Amino acid sequence: MSAGAPAPRVAFQGERGAFSEEAAVRLLGAGVALVPRPTFESLFAAVEEGAADCALAPVENTLAGSVHRSYDLMLESRLHIAAEVVIPIHHYLIGCPGSSLEEITTVESHPVALAQCERFFAARPGLRRLAAEDTAGSVAQVVARGDRTRAAIAGRRAAELYGGAILRERVEDHSENYTRFVLLTPRAGAAEGADKLSLVVKLAHRPGALYHALEPFARRRIDLLKIESRPVRGRPWEYHFYLDLRASLGDAEAAAALEELRERAAAVRLLGCYPAARPAPAAGDIPSHD
Amino acid sequence: MSAGAPAPRVAFQGERGAFSEEAAVRLLGAGVALVPRPTFESLFAAVEEGAADCALAPVENTLAGSVHRSYDLMLESRLHIAAEVVIPIHHYLIGCPGSSLEEITTVESHPVALAQCERFFAARPGLRRLAAEDTAGSVAQVVARGDRTRAAIAGRRAAELYGGAILRERVEDHSENYTRFVLLTPRAGAAEGADKLSLVVKLAHRPGALYHALEPFARRRIDLLKIESRPVRGRPWEYHFYLDLRASLGDAEAAAALEELRERAAAVRLLGCYPAARPAPAAGDIPSHD
Repeated sequence: MSAGAPAPRVAFQGERGAFSEEAAVRLLGAGVALVPRPTFESLFAAVEEGAADCALAPVENTLAGSVHRSYDLMLESRLHIAAEVVIPIHHYLIGCPGSSLEEITTVESHPVALAQCERFFAARPGLRRLAAEDTAGSVAQVVARGDRTRAAIAGRRAAELYGGAILRERVEDHSENYTRFVLLTPRAGAAEGADKLSLVVKLAHRPGALYHALEPFARRRIDLLKIESRPVRGRPWEYHFYLDLRASLGDAEAAAALEELRERAAAVRLLGCYPAARPAPAAGDIPSHD
Repeated sequence: MSAGAPAPRVAFQGERGAFSEEAAVRLLGAGVALVPRPTFESLFAAVEEGAADCALAPVENTLAGSVHRSYDLMLESRLHIAAEVVIPIHHYLIGCPGSSLEEITTVESHPVALAQCERFFAARPGLRRLAAEDTAGSVAQVVARGDRTRAAIAGRRAAELYGGAILRERVEDHSENYTRFVLLTPRAGAAEGADKLSLVVKLAHRPGALYHALEPFARRRIDLLKIESRPVRGRPWEYHFYLDLRASLGDAEAAAALEELRERAAAVRLLGCYPAARPAPAAGDIPSHD
Protein backbone atom coordinates (compact mmCIF):
# COMPACT_ATOMS: atom_id res chain seq x y z
CA MET A 1 0.00 0.00 0.00
CA SER A 2 1.26 3.54 -0.64
CA ALA A 3 2.25 5.84 2.21
CA GLY A 4 -0.65 7.91 3.45
CA ALA A 5 -3.39 5.65 2.05
CA PRO A 6 -5.69 4.31 4.78
CA ALA A 7 -4.84 0.73 5.77
CA PRO A 8 -7.25 -1.80 4.23
CA ARG A 9 -9.51 -3.53 6.75
CA VAL A 10 -9.42 -7.32 6.41
CA ALA A 11 -11.89 -9.63 8.14
CA PHE A 12 -10.74 -13.11 9.20
CA GLN A 13 -12.41 -15.98 11.06
CA GLY A 14 -11.23 -16.67 14.57
CA GLU A 15 -9.87 -14.66 17.45
CA ARG A 16 -6.85 -12.38 17.42
CA GLY A 17 -3.71 -14.48 16.96
CA ALA A 18 -5.38 -17.09 14.72
CA PHE A 19 -3.61 -18.67 11.75
CA SER A 20 -5.96 -16.61 9.57
CA GLU A 21 -4.56 -13.43 11.11
CA GLU A 22 -1.03 -14.60 10.32
CA ALA A 23 -2.13 -15.21 6.72
CA ALA A 24 -3.70 -11.74 6.49
CA VAL A 25 -0.51 -10.06 7.67
CA ARG A 26 1.59 -12.16 5.33
CA LEU A 27 -0.56 -11.19 2.34
CA LEU A 28 -1.35 -7.55 3.13
CA GLY A 29 1.50 -6.43 5.39
CA ALA A 30 1.78 -5.62 9.09
CA GLY A 31 -0.06 -2.32 8.63
CA VAL A 32 -3.37 -3.96 7.70
CA ALA A 33 -6.37 -3.29 9.96
CA LEU A 34 -7.51 -6.63 11.46
CA VAL A 35 -11.24 -7.39 11.84
CA PRO A 36 -11.67 -10.72 13.73
CA ARG A 37 -15.02 -12.47 13.24
CA PRO A 38 -16.31 -15.42 15.32
CA THR A 39 -17.91 -17.47 12.50
CA PHE A 40 -17.56 -18.08 8.77
CA GLU A 41 -21.00 -16.51 8.24
CA SER A 42 -20.01 -13.29 10.01
CA LEU A 43 -16.68 -13.30 8.12
CA PHE A 44 -18.45 -13.13 4.77
CA ALA A 45 -21.06 -10.69 6.11
CA ALA A 46 -18.37 -8.27 7.35
CA VAL A 47 -17.64 -7.02 3.81
CA GLU A 48 -21.26 -6.70 2.81
CA GLU A 49 -22.00 -4.77 6.02
CA GLY A 50 -19.10 -2.39 5.36
CA ALA A 51 -17.19 -3.46 8.50
CA ALA A 52 -14.24 -4.62 6.35
CA ASP A 53 -12.91 -3.94 2.84
CA CYS A 54 -12.07 -7.58 2.20
CA ALA A 55 -12.28 -11.00 3.85
CA LEU A 56 -9.67 -13.74 4.07
CA ALA A 57 -11.20 -17.23 3.98
CA PRO A 58 -9.33 -20.56 4.40
CA VAL A 59 -10.14 -22.88 1.50
CA GLU A 60 -7.78 -25.82 1.87
CA ASN A 61 -5.38 -27.51 4.26
CA THR A 62 -2.87 -29.94 2.79
CA LEU A 63 -3.71 -32.55 5.46
CA ALA A 64 -7.37 -31.93 6.32
CA GLY A 65 -8.49 -31.08 2.78
CA SER A 66 -10.96 -28.46 1.62
CA VAL A 67 -12.77 -26.13 4.01
CA HIS A 68 -16.30 -26.87 2.89
CA ARG A 69 -17.97 -23.99 4.68
CA SER A 70 -15.82 -21.48 2.79
CA TYR A 71 -16.75 -23.04 -0.56
CA ASP A 72 -20.45 -22.99 0.28
CA LEU A 73 -20.36 -19.36 1.43
CA MET A 74 -18.36 -18.27 -1.63
CA LEU A 75 -21.16 -19.65 -3.76
CA GLU A 76 -23.80 -17.79 -1.75
CA SER A 77 -21.93 -14.48 -1.60
CA ARG A 78 -21.23 -11.95 -4.35
CA LEU A 79 -17.56 -11.55 -3.43
CA HIS A 80 -14.70 -12.30 -5.83
CA ILE A 81 -11.30 -13.86 -5.24
CA ALA A 82 -8.63 -11.18 -5.70
CA ALA A 83 -5.59 -13.02 -4.29
CA GLU A 84 -4.48 -16.13 -2.44
CA VAL A 85 -1.86 -16.87 0.19
CA VAL A 86 -0.39 -20.08 1.60
CA ILE A 87 1.05 -20.31 5.11
CA PRO A 88 2.78 -23.20 6.89
CA ILE A 89 0.83 -24.50 9.91
CA HIS A 90 3.00 -25.28 12.91
CA HIS A 91 1.38 -26.15 16.21
CA TYR A 92 2.73 -25.22 19.64
CA LEU A 93 1.71 -26.43 23.08
CA ILE A 94 1.07 -23.24 25.04
CA GLY A 95 0.44 -22.97 28.77
CA CYS A 96 -0.01 -20.06 31.16
CA PRO A 97 3.16 -18.26 32.30
CA GLY A 98 5.14 -20.36 34.78
CA SER A 99 3.58 -23.68 33.76
CA SER A 100 5.57 -26.72 32.60
CA LEU A 101 4.78 -29.70 30.37
CA GLU A 102 4.88 -32.07 33.38
CA GLU A 103 1.98 -30.27 35.12
CA ILE A 104 -0.40 -30.33 32.13
CA THR A 105 -3.39 -32.70 32.35
CA THR A 106 -5.79 -31.12 29.82
CA VAL A 107 -5.10 -29.76 26.34
CA GLU A 108 -7.72 -27.75 24.51
CA SER A 109 -7.90 -26.54 20.91
CA HIS A 110 -9.96 -26.70 17.75
CA PRO A 111 -10.67 -30.37 16.88
CA VAL A 112 -8.73 -30.12 13.58
CA ALA A 113 -5.64 -28.87 15.43
CA LEU A 114 -5.95 -31.64 18.06
CA ALA A 115 -6.29 -34.23 15.28
CA GLN A 116 -3.10 -32.95 13.64
CA CYS A 117 -1.09 -33.74 16.79
CA GLU A 118 -2.00 -37.44 17.18
CA ARG A 119 1.60 -38.55 17.79
CA PHE A 120 2.05 -36.07 20.62
CA PHE A 121 -1.09 -37.38 22.36
CA ALA A 122 -0.34 -41.05 21.62
CA ALA A 123 2.94 -40.67 23.54
CA ARG A 124 1.06 -39.13 26.51
CA PRO A 125 -2.08 -41.23 27.04
CA GLY A 126 -2.86 -39.45 30.34
CA LEU A 127 -3.57 -36.12 28.62
CA ARG A 128 -7.23 -35.21 28.24
CA ARG A 129 -8.23 -33.55 24.96
CA LEU A 130 -10.89 -30.84 25.03
CA ALA A 131 -12.57 -29.55 21.88
CA ALA A 132 -12.75 -25.74 21.63
CA GLU A 133 -14.10 -23.29 19.07
CA ASP A 134 -10.76 -21.77 18.16
CA THR A 135 -7.00 -22.33 18.46
CA ALA A 136 -6.03 -18.78 19.44
CA GLY A 137 -9.11 -18.43 21.67
CA SER A 138 -7.97 -21.48 23.64
CA VAL A 139 -4.66 -19.76 24.36
CA ALA A 140 -6.46 -16.60 25.51
CA GLN A 141 -8.55 -18.69 27.93
CA VAL A 142 -5.63 -20.76 29.23
CA VAL A 143 -3.65 -17.60 29.99
CA ALA A 144 -6.66 -15.77 31.49
CA ARG A 145 -7.52 -18.74 33.74
CA GLY A 146 -3.93 -19.17 34.96
CA ASP A 147 -4.58 -22.88 35.63
CA ARG A 148 -1.15 -24.59 35.38
CA THR A 149 -2.72 -27.97 34.50
CA ARG A 150 -4.21 -26.61 31.29
CA ALA A 151 -2.59 -25.93 27.94
CA ALA A 152 -3.76 -25.07 24.42
CA ILE A 153 -2.54 -25.95 20.94
CA ALA A 154 -2.20 -23.01 18.56
CA GLY A 155 0.28 -21.06 16.47
CA ARG A 156 3.23 -19.09 17.80
CA ARG A 157 1.45 -15.81 17.06
CA ALA A 158 -1.24 -16.63 19.65
CA ALA A 159 1.41 -17.34 22.34
CA GLU A 160 3.07 -13.99 21.65
CA LEU A 161 -0.19 -12.02 21.55
CA TYR A 162 -1.65 -13.42 24.80
CA GLY A 163 1.60 -13.89 26.72
CA GLY A 164 1.39 -17.70 26.85
CA ALA A 165 4.39 -19.91 27.62
CA ILE A 166 5.50 -22.23 24.80
CA LEU A 167 5.86 -25.65 26.48
CA ARG A 168 6.64 -27.62 23.33
CA GLU A 169 7.41 -26.51 19.78
CA ARG A 170 6.10 -28.13 16.61
CA VAL A 171 3.78 -30.76 18.08
CA GLU A 172 2.14 -31.41 14.68
CA ASP A 173 2.42 -34.91 13.14
CA HIS A 174 3.34 -33.81 9.63
CA SER A 175 5.70 -30.97 8.84
CA GLU A 176 4.26 -30.55 5.33
CA ASN A 177 1.17 -28.83 6.69
CA TYR A 178 -0.05 -25.74 4.80
CA THR A 179 -3.28 -23.81 4.63
CA ARG A 180 -4.36 -21.86 1.58
CA PHE A 181 -6.53 -18.75 2.00
CA VAL A 182 -8.29 -16.60 -0.59
CA LEU A 183 -8.82 -12.86 -0.29
CA LEU A 184 -12.39 -11.91 -1.18
CA THR A 185 -13.39 -8.43 -2.33
CA PRO A 186 -16.50 -6.86 -3.86
CA ARG A 187 -14.56 -6.00 -7.05
CA ALA A 188 -14.83 -8.31 -10.06
CA GLY A 189 -12.22 -8.65 -12.80
CA ALA A 190 -8.77 -10.17 -13.13
CA ALA A 191 -6.19 -8.92 -10.64
CA GLU A 192 -2.79 -7.76 -11.91
CA GLY A 193 -0.47 -10.69 -12.70
CA ALA A 194 -3.40 -13.13 -12.61
CA ASP A 195 -2.51 -16.68 -13.72
CA LYS A 196 -5.08 -18.74 -11.80
CA LEU A 197 -8.80 -19.07 -12.40
CA SER A 198 -11.40 -20.40 -9.94
CA LEU A 199 -14.91 -21.28 -11.00
CA VAL A 200 -17.97 -23.29 -9.99
CA VAL A 201 -19.80 -25.47 -12.49
CA LYS A 202 -23.21 -27.11 -12.23
CA LEU A 203 -23.61 -30.00 -14.63
CA ALA A 204 -26.55 -31.96 -15.91
CA HIS A 205 -26.54 -35.40 -14.29
CA ARG A 206 -25.72 -37.67 -17.23
CA PRO A 207 -22.87 -40.01 -18.11
CA GLY A 208 -19.77 -38.14 -19.29
CA ALA A 209 -20.97 -34.70 -18.10
CA LEU A 210 -17.80 -33.94 -16.12
CA TYR A 211 -15.55 -35.41 -18.81
CA HIS A 212 -17.29 -33.25 -21.41
CA ALA A 213 -16.94 -30.15 -19.22
CA LEU A 214 -13.19 -30.61 -18.78
CA GLU A 215 -12.54 -31.16 -22.49
CA PRO A 216 -12.22 -27.50 -23.59
CA PHE A 217 -9.40 -27.05 -21.06
CA ALA A 218 -7.69 -30.41 -21.67
CA ARG A 219 -7.63 -29.82 -25.45
CA ARG A 220 -5.81 -26.53 -24.88
CA ARG A 221 -3.46 -28.11 -22.35
CA ILE A 222 -4.72 -25.79 -19.59
CA ASP A 223 -3.74 -27.33 -16.24
CA LEU A 224 -6.52 -28.34 -13.84
CA LEU A 225 -4.95 -27.62 -10.44
CA LYS A 226 -7.79 -28.81 -8.21
CA ILE A 227 -11.31 -30.19 -8.46
CA GLU A 228 -13.75 -30.34 -5.58
CA SER A 229 -17.34 -31.52 -5.57
CA ARG A 230 -19.82 -30.13 -3.06
CA PRO A 231 -23.36 -31.37 -2.55
CA VAL A 232 -26.13 -29.10 -3.82
CA ARG A 233 -28.31 -28.19 -0.80
CA GLY A 234 -31.75 -29.74 -0.90
CA ARG A 235 -30.78 -31.87 -3.93
CA PRO A 236 -29.21 -35.03 -2.46
CA TRP A 237 -26.52 -36.65 -4.67
CA GLU A 238 -26.22 -33.62 -6.99
CA TYR A 239 -22.98 -31.66 -6.91
CA HIS A 240 -21.35 -28.36 -7.75
CA PHE A 241 -17.82 -28.75 -9.08
CA TYR A 242 -15.21 -26.21 -8.02
CA LEU A 243 -12.32 -25.99 -10.48
CA ASP A 244 -8.96 -24.23 -10.11
CA LEU A 245 -7.18 -23.81 -13.44
CA ARG A 246 -3.77 -22.43 -14.40
CA ALA A 247 -5.15 -19.73 -16.70
CA SER A 248 -5.85 -16.03 -17.01
CA LEU A 249 -8.97 -14.36 -18.34
CA GLY A 250 -6.67 -12.08 -20.34
CA ASP A 251 -5.48 -15.09 -22.36
CA ALA A 252 -7.54 -15.69 -25.52
CA GLU A 253 -7.24 -19.50 -25.31
CA ALA A 254 -8.50 -19.58 -21.70
CA ALA A 255 -11.35 -17.22 -22.55
CA ALA A 256 -12.35 -19.48 -25.48
CA ALA A 257 -12.26 -22.58 -23.23
CA LEU A 258 -14.44 -20.82 -20.66
CA GLU A 259 -16.89 -19.86 -23.41
CA GLU A 260 -17.11 -23.51 -24.53
CA LEU A 261 -17.64 -24.62 -20.93
CA ARG A 262 -20.57 -22.20 -20.60
CA GLU A 263 -22.24 -23.87 -23.60
CA ARG A 264 -21.84 -27.33 -22.05
CA ALA A 265 -22.71 -26.69 -18.38
CA ALA A 266 -26.05 -26.01 -16.70
CA ALA A 267 -24.40 -23.04 -14.96
CA VAL A 268 -20.92 -21.53 -14.58
CA ARG A 269 -19.93 -18.96 -11.97
CA LEU A 270 -16.53 -17.27 -12.13
CA LEU A 271 -15.16 -16.94 -8.58
CA GLY A 272 -12.01 -15.04 -9.48
CA CYS A 273 -8.88 -14.63 -11.56
CA TYR A 274 -5.81 -13.87 -9.45
CA PRO A 275 -2.06 -14.49 -9.09
CA ALA A 276 -1.25 -17.97 -7.76
CA ALA A 277 0.51 -17.92 -4.39
CA ARG A 278 4.27 -18.31 -4.52
CA PRO A 279 5.82 -20.92 -2.22
CA ALA A 280 5.43 -19.71 1.36
CA PRO A 281 8.50 -18.02 2.82
CA ALA A 282 10.00 -19.42 6.02
CA ALA A 283 7.93 -18.86 9.17
CA GLY A 284 8.58 -15.47 10.72
CA ASP A 285 9.68 -14.03 7.39
CA ILE A 286 6.80 -11.61 6.81
CA PRO A 287 7.16 -9.80 3.50
CA SER A 288 6.52 -6.07 3.53
CA HIS A 289 4.08 -4.60 1.05
CA ASP A 290 5.10 -0.94 1.13
CA MET B 1 -29.06 -63.76 8.10
CA SER B 2 -30.26 -67.33 8.43
CA ALA B 3 -31.65 -68.69 11.69
CA GLY B 4 -28.96 -70.24 13.88
CA ALA B 5 -26.00 -68.51 12.20
CA PRO B 6 -24.04 -66.35 14.63
CA ALA B 7 -24.93 -62.67 14.33
CA PRO B 8 -22.27 -60.70 12.46
CA ARG B 9 -20.36 -58.23 14.61
CA VAL B 10 -20.30 -54.73 13.13
CA ALA B 11 -18.06 -51.94 14.40
CA PHE B 12 -19.25 -48.33 14.15
CA GLN B 13 -17.81 -45.00 15.26
CA GLY B 14 -19.48 -43.29 18.19
CA GLU B 15 -21.28 -44.34 21.31
CA ARG B 16 -24.34 -46.60 21.51
CA GLY B 17 -27.32 -44.79 19.98
CA ALA B 18 -25.27 -42.98 17.33
CA PHE B 19 -26.56 -42.42 13.79
CA SER B 20 -23.96 -45.00 12.71
CA GLU B 21 -25.65 -47.59 14.94
CA GLU B 22 -28.99 -46.81 13.31
CA ALA B 23 -27.38 -47.30 9.90
CA ALA B 24 -25.87 -50.64 10.99
CA VAL B 25 -29.25 -51.94 12.15
CA ARG B 26 -30.92 -50.72 8.97
CA LEU B 27 -28.37 -52.51 6.80
CA LEU B 28 -27.78 -55.70 8.79
CA GLY B 29 -30.98 -56.13 10.80
CA ALA B 30 -31.82 -55.74 14.48
CA GLY B 31 -30.01 -58.99 15.34
CA VAL B 32 -26.55 -57.65 14.47
CA ALA B 33 -23.94 -57.52 17.24
CA LEU B 34 -22.94 -53.87 17.79
CA VAL B 35 -19.31 -52.95 18.46
CA PRO B 36 -19.06 -49.20 19.27
CA ARG B 37 -15.65 -47.59 18.78
CA PRO B 38 -14.59 -44.14 20.00
CA THR B 39 -12.55 -43.00 16.98
CA PHE B 40 -12.33 -43.59 13.24
CA GLU B 41 -8.89 -45.15 13.72
CA SER B 42 -10.21 -47.70 16.22
CA LEU B 43 -13.22 -48.36 13.96
CA PHE B 44 -10.98 -49.51 11.12
CA ALA B 45 -8.65 -51.35 13.52
CA ALA B 46 -11.57 -53.33 15.02
CA VAL B 47 -11.78 -55.63 11.99
CA GLU B 48 -8.05 -56.13 11.67
CA GLU B 49 -7.84 -56.97 15.39
CA GLY B 50 -10.69 -59.51 15.08
CA ALA B 51 -13.02 -57.58 17.41
CA ALA B 52 -15.58 -57.21 14.60
CA ASP B 53 -16.42 -58.95 11.31
CA CYS B 54 -17.07 -55.72 9.48
CA ALA B 55 -17.01 -51.96 10.00
CA LEU B 56 -19.54 -49.34 8.97
CA ALA B 57 -17.94 -46.01 8.04
CA PRO B 58 -19.76 -42.76 7.14
CA VAL B 59 -18.47 -41.42 3.82
CA GLU B 60 -20.79 -38.57 2.90
CA ASN B 61 -23.48 -36.30 4.28
CA THR B 62 -25.67 -34.49 1.78
CA LEU B 63 -25.19 -31.17 3.61
CA ALA B 64 -21.73 -31.40 5.15
CA GLY B 65 -20.11 -33.28 2.26
CA SER B 66 -17.56 -36.07 2.34
CA VAL B 67 -16.18 -37.52 5.56
CA HIS B 68 -12.49 -37.06 4.81
CA ARG B 69 -11.17 -39.21 7.62
CA SER B 70 -13.08 -42.24 6.30
CA TYR B 71 -11.64 -41.77 2.82
CA ASP B 72 -8.11 -41.46 4.16
CA LEU B 73 -8.46 -44.56 6.35
CA MET B 74 -10.00 -46.61 3.51
CA LEU B 75 -6.87 -45.88 1.50
CA GLU B 76 -4.60 -46.97 4.36
CA SER B 77 -6.56 -50.11 5.24
CA ARG B 78 -6.91 -53.38 3.34
CA LEU B 79 -10.68 -53.57 3.79
CA HIS B 80 -13.14 -53.66 0.88
CA ILE B 81 -16.56 -52.07 0.43
CA ALA B 82 -19.21 -54.82 0.44
CA ALA B 83 -22.37 -52.69 0.74
CA GLU B 84 -23.65 -49.19 1.37
CA VAL B 85 -26.62 -47.74 3.22
CA VAL B 86 -28.19 -44.29 3.34
CA ILE B 87 -30.14 -43.01 6.35
CA PRO B 88 -32.05 -39.76 6.89
CA ILE B 89 -30.54 -37.56 9.60
CA HIS B 90 -33.10 -35.94 11.87
CA HIS B 91 -31.95 -34.06 14.95
CA TYR B 92 -33.81 -33.92 18.27
CA LEU B 93 -33.27 -31.68 21.26
CA ILE B 94 -32.99 -34.07 24.19
CA GLY B 95 -32.92 -33.19 27.89
CA CYS B 96 -32.90 -35.20 31.10
CA PRO B 97 -36.26 -36.63 32.25
CA GLY B 98 -38.51 -33.91 33.65
CA SER B 99 -36.76 -31.03 31.90
CA SER B 100 -38.47 -28.56 29.57
CA LEU B 101 -37.28 -26.40 26.68
CA GLU B 102 -37.76 -23.22 28.75
CA GLU B 103 -35.21 -24.33 31.37
CA ILE B 104 -32.41 -25.13 28.92
CA THR B 105 -29.43 -22.76 28.84
CA THR B 106 -26.73 -24.97 27.28
CA VAL B 107 -26.93 -27.37 24.33
CA GLU B 108 -24.12 -29.79 23.60
CA SER B 109 -23.45 -32.04 20.62
CA HIS B 110 -20.95 -32.82 17.88
CA PRO B 111 -20.01 -29.58 16.05
CA VAL B 112 -21.45 -30.89 12.75
CA ALA B 113 -24.83 -31.57 14.41
CA LEU B 114 -24.84 -28.12 16.08
CA ALA B 115 -24.03 -26.51 12.71
CA GLN B 116 -26.99 -28.30 11.11
CA CYS B 117 -29.41 -26.62 13.54
CA GLU B 118 -28.47 -22.97 12.88
CA ARG B 119 -32.08 -21.78 12.60
CA PHE B 120 -33.01 -23.29 15.97
CA PHE B 121 -30.13 -21.43 17.66
CA ALA B 122 -30.67 -18.20 15.71
CA ALA B 123 -34.20 -18.04 17.14
CA ARG B 124 -32.82 -18.54 20.69
CA PRO B 125 -29.74 -16.30 21.01
CA GLY B 126 -29.49 -16.96 24.76
CA LEU B 127 -28.63 -20.65 24.29
CA ARG B 128 -24.98 -21.56 24.75
CA ARG B 129 -23.57 -24.13 22.31
CA LEU B 130 -21.01 -26.62 23.59
CA ALA B 131 -18.90 -28.78 21.28
CA ALA B 132 -18.79 -32.48 22.24
CA GLU B 133 -17.15 -35.56 20.81
CA ASP B 134 -20.32 -37.37 19.92
CA THR B 135 -24.08 -36.82 19.46
CA ALA B 136 -25.27 -39.90 21.36
CA GLY B 137 -22.56 -39.49 24.00
CA SER B 138 -23.90 -35.99 24.75
CA VAL B 139 -27.33 -37.49 25.47
CA ALA B 140 -25.79 -40.08 27.79
CA GLN B 141 -24.03 -37.31 29.71
CA VAL B 142 -27.06 -35.01 29.87
CA VAL B 143 -29.20 -37.83 31.29
CA ALA B 144 -26.48 -39.01 33.71
CA ARG B 145 -25.89 -35.49 35.03
CA GLY B 146 -29.59 -34.77 35.52
CA ASP B 147 -28.97 -31.03 35.09
CA ARG B 148 -32.28 -29.57 33.83
CA THR B 149 -30.51 -26.58 32.20
CA ARG B 150 -28.60 -28.85 29.81
CA ALA B 151 -29.73 -30.56 26.63
CA ALA B 152 -28.10 -32.45 23.77
CA ILE B 153 -28.77 -32.71 20.04
CA ALA B 154 -28.84 -36.25 18.66
CA GLY B 155 -31.03 -38.82 16.93
CA ARG B 156 -34.20 -40.33 18.34
CA ARG B 157 -32.40 -43.63 18.94
CA ALA B 158 -30.11 -41.99 21.51
CA ALA B 159 -33.10 -40.55 23.42
CA GLU B 160 -34.73 -43.99 23.57
CA LEU B 161 -31.53 -45.80 24.56
CA TYR B 162 -30.50 -43.45 27.39
CA GLY B 163 -33.99 -42.47 28.57
CA GLY B 164 -33.72 -38.81 27.56
CA ALA B 165 -36.74 -36.53 27.14
CA ILE B 166 -37.36 -35.22 23.65
CA LEU B 167 -37.90 -31.46 24.10
CA ARG B 168 -38.14 -30.58 20.43
CA GLU B 169 -38.42 -32.75 17.32
CA ARG B 170 -36.63 -32.14 14.03
CA VAL B 171 -34.48 -29.15 14.95
CA GLU B 172 -32.36 -29.53 11.79
CA ASP B 173 -32.31 -26.70 9.22
CA HIS B 174 -32.73 -28.85 6.13
CA SER B 175 -35.03 -31.83 5.89
CA GLU B 176 -33.11 -33.27 2.93
CA ASN B 177 -30.28 -34.43 5.18
CA TYR B 178 -28.87 -37.92 4.55
CA THR B 179 -25.69 -39.73 5.46
CA ARG B 180 -24.21 -42.50 3.36
CA PHE B 181 -22.22 -45.29 5.03
CA VAL B 182 -20.15 -48.09 3.53
CA LEU B 183 -19.76 -51.55 5.03
CA LEU B 184 -16.13 -52.65 5.04
CA THR B 185 -15.04 -56.29 5.17
CA PRO B 186 -11.79 -58.19 4.66
CA ARG B 187 -13.24 -60.03 1.64
CA ALA B 188 -12.47 -58.75 -1.86
CA GLY B 189 -14.63 -59.35 -4.92
CA ALA B 190 -17.98 -58.07 -6.20
CA ALA B 191 -20.94 -58.54 -3.87
CA GLU B 192 -24.14 -60.11 -5.20
CA GLY B 193 -26.24 -57.63 -7.18
CA ALA B 194 -23.30 -55.22 -7.42
CA ASP B 195 -23.94 -52.21 -9.66
CA LYS B 196 -21.64 -49.60 -8.14
CA LEU B 197 -17.86 -49.38 -8.26
CA SER B 198 -15.62 -47.29 -5.96
CA LEU B 199 -11.96 -46.72 -6.72
CA VAL B 200 -9.04 -44.41 -5.93
CA VAL B 201 -6.81 -43.08 -8.68
CA LYS B 202 -3.44 -41.35 -8.44
CA LEU B 203 -2.62 -39.34 -11.54
CA ALA B 204 0.52 -37.77 -12.89
CA HIS B 205 0.34 -34.02 -12.44
CA ARG B 206 0.03 -32.80 -16.00
CA PRO B 207 -2.61 -30.93 -18.01
CA GLY B 208 -5.53 -33.12 -18.98
CA ALA B 209 -4.62 -36.01 -16.64
CA LEU B 210 -8.06 -36.21 -15.02
CA TYR B 211 -9.86 -35.68 -18.32
CA HIS B 212 -7.79 -38.50 -19.85
CA ALA B 213 -8.54 -40.79 -16.86
CA LEU B 214 -12.30 -40.30 -17.16
CA GLU B 215 -12.38 -40.94 -20.90
CA PRO B 216 -12.61 -44.77 -20.84
CA PHE B 217 -15.80 -44.48 -18.76
CA ALA B 218 -17.32 -41.50 -20.60
CA ARG B 219 -16.81 -43.22 -23.98
CA ARG B 220 -18.77 -46.24 -22.72
CA ARG B 221 -21.46 -43.97 -21.17
CA ILE B 222 -20.67 -45.31 -17.69
CA ASP B 223 -22.07 -42.83 -15.18
CA LEU B 224 -19.66 -41.07 -12.81
CA LEU B 225 -21.73 -40.74 -9.62
CA LYS B 226 -19.23 -38.86 -7.47
CA ILE B 227 -15.69 -37.55 -7.60
CA GLU B 228 -13.70 -36.45 -4.60
CA SER B 229 -10.12 -35.25 -4.42
CA ARG B 230 -8.07 -35.72 -1.27
CA PRO B 231 -4.60 -34.30 -0.67
CA VAL B 232 -1.74 -36.78 -0.74
CA ARG B 233 -0.05 -36.64 2.68
CA GLY B 234 3.41 -35.11 2.61
CA ARG B 235 2.96 -34.04 -1.03
CA PRO B 236 1.25 -30.64 -0.85
CA TRP B 237 -1.05 -29.84 -3.81
CA GLU B 238 -1.07 -33.45 -5.10
CA TYR B 239 -4.34 -35.39 -4.89
CA HIS B 240 -5.91 -38.81 -4.89
CA PHE B 241 -9.19 -38.95 -6.80
CA TYR B 242 -11.99 -41.09 -5.39
CA LEU B 243 -14.48 -42.13 -8.05
CA ASP B 244 -17.91 -43.76 -7.67
CA LEU B 245 -19.18 -45.24 -10.94
CA ARG B 246 -22.43 -46.92 -11.92
CA ALA B 247 -20.79 -50.17 -13.03
CA SER B 248 -20.14 -53.78 -12.06
CA LEU B 249 -16.89 -55.68 -12.34
CA GLY B 250 -18.92 -58.52 -13.86
CA ASP B 251 -19.74 -56.32 -16.85
CA ALA B 252 -17.21 -56.68 -19.72
CA GLU B 253 -17.46 -53.00 -20.73
CA ALA B 254 -16.77 -51.79 -17.19
CA ALA B 255 -13.87 -54.22 -16.84
CA ALA B 256 -12.39 -52.94 -20.11
CA ALA B 257 -12.75 -49.32 -18.98
CA LEU B 258 -11.01 -50.15 -15.72
CA GLU B 259 -8.18 -51.83 -17.64
CA GLU B 260 -7.72 -48.71 -19.77
CA LEU B 261 -7.71 -46.54 -16.66
CA ARG B 262 -4.93 -48.66 -15.17
CA GLU B 263 -2.79 -47.95 -18.25
CA ARG B 264 -3.34 -44.20 -17.94
CA ALA B 265 -3.05 -43.65 -14.17
CA ALA B 266 0.00 -43.69 -11.89
CA ALA B 267 -1.96 -46.02 -9.58
CA VAL B 268 -5.49 -47.45 -9.28
CA ARG B 269 -6.91 -49.10 -6.17
CA LEU B 270 -10.28 -50.83 -6.29
CA LEU B 271 -12.18 -50.09 -3.07
CA GLY B 272 -15.20 -52.26 -3.80
CA CYS B 273 -18.01 -53.34 -6.08
CA TYR B 274 -21.37 -53.48 -4.34
CA PRO B 275 -25.11 -52.85 -4.74
CA ALA B 276 -26.03 -49.16 -4.69
CA ALA B 277 -28.27 -48.21 -1.76
CA ARG B 278 -31.94 -47.97 -2.59
CA PRO B 279 -33.75 -44.79 -1.47
CA ALA B 280 -33.93 -44.80 2.32
CA PRO B 281 -37.25 -46.01 3.74
CA ALA B 282 -39.14 -43.69 6.08
CA ALA B 283 -37.63 -43.23 9.55
CA GLY B 284 -38.58 -46.02 11.92
CA ASP B 285 -39.22 -48.42 9.07
CA ILE B 286 -36.37 -50.86 9.69
CA PRO B 287 -36.28 -53.59 7.05
CA SER B 288 -35.79 -57.11 8.33
CA HIS B 289 -33.03 -59.22 6.82
CA ASP B 290 -34.19 -62.69 7.76
